[in-house]
Amino acid sequence: MVPLIQVELDRKLYDEKGDEISREIHQAQIDALGTAPDDLFQIFHPHEPGELKFNPTYGGVDRRSLMVIRITLVHRHSVVTKKGLYKAILDRLAAIGVRADDVQIALVENGFEDWFAGKL
Amino acid sequence: MVPLIQVELDRKLYDEKGDEISREIHQAQIDALGTAPDDLFQIFHPHEPGELKFNPTYGGVDRRSLMVIRITLVHRHSVVTKKGLYKAILDRLAAIGVRADDVQIALVENGFEDWFAGKL
Amino acid sequence: MVPLIQVELDRKLYDEKGDEISREIHQAQIDALGTAPDDLFQIFHPHEPGELKFNPTYGGVDRRSLMVIRITLVHRHSVVTKKGLYKAILDRLAAIGVRADDVQIALVENGFEDWFAGKL
Repeated sequence: MVPLIQVELDRKLYDEKGDEISREIHQAQIDALGTAPDDLFQIFHPHEPGELKFNPTYGGVDRRSLMVIRITLVHRHSVVTKKGLYKAILDRLAAIGVRADDVQIALVENGFEDWFAGKL
Repeated sequence: MVPLIQVELDRKLYDEKGDEISREIHQAQIDALGTAPDDLFQIFHPHEPGELKFNPTYGGVDRRSLMVIRITLVHRHSVVTKKGLYKAILDRLAAIGVRADDVQIALVENGFEDWFAGKL
Repeated sequence: MVPLIQVELDRKLYDEKGDEISREIHQAQIDALGTAPDDLFQIFHPHEPGELKFNPTYGGVDRRSLMVIRITLVHRHSVVTKKGLYKAILDRLAAIGVRADDVQIALVENGFEDWFAGKL
């Protein structure tokens, strides 16, 4: 399966809650996609002020900062499953104080043959 | 629409012109794709010397440094529109002193269902 | 051709072997894909401890650290060629002391029209 999760966020938020954010996104992945608990590949990219550029109201929300979650995933999940993944992530992040308004998710799909994870 | 723009560039250039580069790429996006002015999602990744590796003459150009613009975009635009986007970006960057020879653009497409931007 | 290679790795490993890793991945690309020797576009992202999150045994391997190689490539290569690329990378990295168990590769494909590299 090996989805790859990349999280772009303010360094301050990373320092305060990076491990929690990691755990919650990972649990959302397990719950929504049915991946194994040990199927964990995440990259955190902490950013200095000004590196994440956004508009505060685009899409009719109240955006105060920006966390971008980039997901690379094998093309095999339905639209319903993918929307369920977003909802699971957002609900879990909200529970630790990360507002959905501040989150962008961008998912890109590839094939089974487009991965290597430790063993050929 | 929510294209996601990621810019990989030398820290020196980022410090000197990061905000200008942001503005010009964003205006090019508006002009070439017709996105709303408030549809802004950009991530800047400043790099130390040596992290961006390139050949100075590949493709018959005079490459003195490298700025990589990575674009994630919904699959809906024609080849002509995408080439218009590249030209708009390059013309605007040239006007602020960033040479086209030093730019690489890599675009990846996904679907409408592959995005979340603040609201489900 | 212009494949774009992005390498996410621990800063310690980058400082010790970044240039070697660059050279070996580039030679693997030349050998497996037949790209020109001057077709070099690589971005290194060194990470502090804790930013690369992984499970030590997922997939039945002995994973002690994580290096993620992200490849963006035109859709034109067979599955056999892509697997040959992974093997060439892994063999060359092993020869300089980077264990295959510690490597993840994630490849994403796009079209010829999705690139700009210095000249329209």
